Amino acid sequence: MREWSYEELMQELTKPSETKILLVVLDGLGGLPIPELDNKTELEAAKIPNLNELAKRSMLGLIEPVLPGISPGSSAGHFALFGYDPLRYYVGRGVLEALGIGFPLQEGDVAIRANFATVKYEGNQPIVVDRRAGRPSTEETKRLCAKLRSEIGEIKDVQVLIEPVKEHRFIVVLRGEGLGEGIRDTDPQVTGKPPLPPKPEPDTTENRKTAEIAAKLIDQIAEVLKDEPKANYALLRGFAKRPSWISFGELYKLKACCIALYPMYRGLAQLVGMKVLEFDGETIADEIDALKQVWKDYDFFFLHIKPTDSRGEDGNWQGKIAVIEEFDQNLPKILTLSPDVLAITGDHSTPALYRAHSWHPVPILLYSRWVIPDPTVENFGERSCAKGTLGRIPSKFLMSLLLAHAERLERYQA
Amino acid sequence: MREWSYEELMQELTKPSETKILLVVLDGLGGLPIPELDNKTELEAAKIPNLNELAKRSMLGLIEPVLPGISPGSSAGHFALFGYDPLRYYVGRGVLEALGIGFPLQEGDVAIRANFATVKYEGNQPIVVDRRAGRPSTEETKRLCAKLRSEIGEIKDVQVLIEPVKEHRFIVVLRGEGLGEGIRDTDPQVTGKPPLPPKPEPDTTENRKTAEIAAKLIDQIAEVLKDEPKANYALLRGFAKRPSWISFGELYKLKACCIALYPMYRGLAQLVGMKVLEFDGETIADEIDALKQVWKDYDFFFLHIKPTDSRGEDGNWQGKIAVIEEFDQNLPKILTLSPDVLAITGDHSTPALYRAHSWHPVPILLYSRWVIPDPTVENFGERSCAKGTLGRIPSKFLMSLLLAHAERLERYQA
Repeated sequence: MREWSYEELMQELTKPSETKILLVVLDGLGGLPIPELDNKTELEAAKIPNLNELAKRSMLGLIEPVLPGISPGSSAGHFALFGYDPLRYYVGRGVLEALGIGFPLQEGDVAIRANFATVKYEGNQPIVVDRRAGRPSTEETKRLCAKLRSEIGEIKDVQVLIEPVKEHRFIVVLRGEGLGEGIRDTDPQVTGKPPLPPKPEPDTTENRKTAEIAAKLIDQIAEVLKDEPKANYALLRGFAKRPSWISFGELYKLKACCIALYPMYRGLAQLVGMKVLEFDGETIADEIDALKQVWKDYDFFFLHIKPTDSRGEDGNWQGKIAVIEEFDQNLPKILTLSPDVLAITGDHSTPALYRAHSWHPVPILLYSRWVIPDPTVENFGERSCAKGTLGRIPSKFLMSLLLAHAERLERYQA
Repeated sequence: MREWSYEELMQELTKPSETKILLVVLDGLGGLPIPELDNKTELEAAKIPNLNELAKRSMLGLIEPVLPGISPGSSAGHFALFGYDPLRYYVGRGVLEALGIGFPLQEGDVAIRANFATVKYEGNQPIVVDRRAGRPSTEETKRLCAKLRSEIGEIKDVQVLIEPVKEHRFIVVLRGEGLGEGIRDTDPQVTGKPPLPPKPEPDTTENRKTAEIAAKLIDQIAEVLKDEPKANYALLRGFAKRPSWISFGELYKLKACCIALYPMYRGLAQLVGMKVLEFDGETIADEIDALKQVWKDYDFFFLHIKPTDSRGEDGNWQGKIAVIEEFDQNLPKILTLSPDVLAITGDHSTPALYRAHSWHPVPILLYSRWVIPDPTVENFGERSCAKGTLGRIPSKFLMSLLLAHAERLERYQA
């Protein structure tokens, strides 16, 4: 007896249709009651007449990104929303760092997170003195990266690509044939010790080749930077390849499009095979204008709104409320597109009170012609969602629910 | 570390008892708000004073037949209710078609769905002209099947059993030693092409034998029907064996009995090893009379009521409401039997508005002396169930819940 996996179920049951699905992700949407707001959450305190009116015609619920108590990173939260179980689908740190700056990773590339560091030498042996080289400014890191790029281009048959990130952080991408991602971090995690050698784990041909190149690269970096007063070394971590997963199109028979301003989210959408839209602008209104432009061309739209999360991480509840209200003011423009299925939710909660991603399940509003609204609902908020007719479901099952509401799923078994 | 499966848990923990469990399945019970009914669902709009009174003394909840968004077929919905995970337990199309007409499948039989079709010949090569032979009436199909039966009885050492189903559809059952079910469908799915040969997939001895017999059978059918103006050929699909699963009795230590009028549901109950009751009548009252007759003889009763689903599929909400009300009027007769545990639910939702099986979770009412009722509940309906004290559980875990309420489960671990 063979058990059907979710992926098999989706490939088997999905069918093409003319219906359109819009998934709006207000990053970090969920919050906690704030004493200064009369114990309302950010979402509950926001003046959102359009969302509240829509809530009365929708199903409300809560989605659980990973498991109870687990606070997801951005990638885990989004993979779950896209129907990729985050306990089975995840990408290495190097890849996430590259996605975060919008680096166009190719198949086979090995992406590495790198830190500028300060070492002193005991004989020929470097000893780590500062793991962050005194935290250089981003501008300084740009200069250092340019210096490295001018000296280091290829090692053996492998291209070495270097890009600054922020402060002491930069990325290295190795591009070539037969590279592996199983390389131990070289950061010893403490000062006063030598950097660790880039050891292949496990010891395969591909990992060995990559480890040798990494060792040469570290030596070359040390040589190029030897006269820098602080940033005279680099520590490498999170060696990772971009995975090639079953695509959104193959899984769901959807032509999917991503509208997002931040590189990380554009990268995550690209990883699952969505078309990532190029457009001008930087506001929610700009994103919705872009959405309108391509409404005819796709049948699934992932619209990502970032600042709810940023304000939450800053502990700035007024700011987070303002972003939610800004979205509310733009909601009528979305509704004029008449999506067959509209879900408004988050990838995780970022309560302003907690100032970080949290484990709290995320409010969701699901609208379609096939919903069972609750006539007692008055607003879209954490507590109305906790009692909502949609109930509480794992985020990883949201996609099948959206597809069902879009009449894009066949019956399972006769 | 070995994980306990649900089946192992049940076999380990169930204990005999004198308690009686009644599971009433109102097929396709769940509905959607209907504008003409003041946005009440069929269940919410029905006048069901007895159910509503019982709801106040029960726990209400929602059960999820497969996964969020998945609309189950009848078999999947029922297997879940019986505690057989529908993603692991499923039967082939041929078997379901045979169960649907009440054909007594034996172990080792291969059941096949067959269509009468029209072919023309290019030389010796048949080309499909009409995959349904102009949709003959059921009467005509009976005549054609009788004609085939008079000419075809055995092929090699294998018995060939032929039964009409409906319109152009009939079933073929191959009965003999060493048969396999891995045979590709012969229906090319389009006209203007030759039928596909019955290819063994994978190529095993059993499948090869069955494919050879199927090929001979197709030739013999073509020969017998050669002078028929339309139905001069047959297309074979869904080759399948009746599975032999762990039985209800072995799993749960229950002596279980099925009271159902429709062959499909009687067949599904028989598949899991329930005794299927023979009785006269065709109404809900007749079914309850039959239940009373055998109340002393069994300790688990599966009472199936079909027309809620049929009326739902017809979009006939008045009709569906009438069936629910008819059940309500009969409920007092059930209650006089004083079941220790009474669950009233459905195998899936069939909203009259949707006119088909849907993915919406199904209302459930669970009554026993060990329930935690909600004093604010006023009725048995989708929205009271969405907020009910039973919560939302996968249908496949209903059995352990019923057994617990019947005090038929030992504690798990000391």
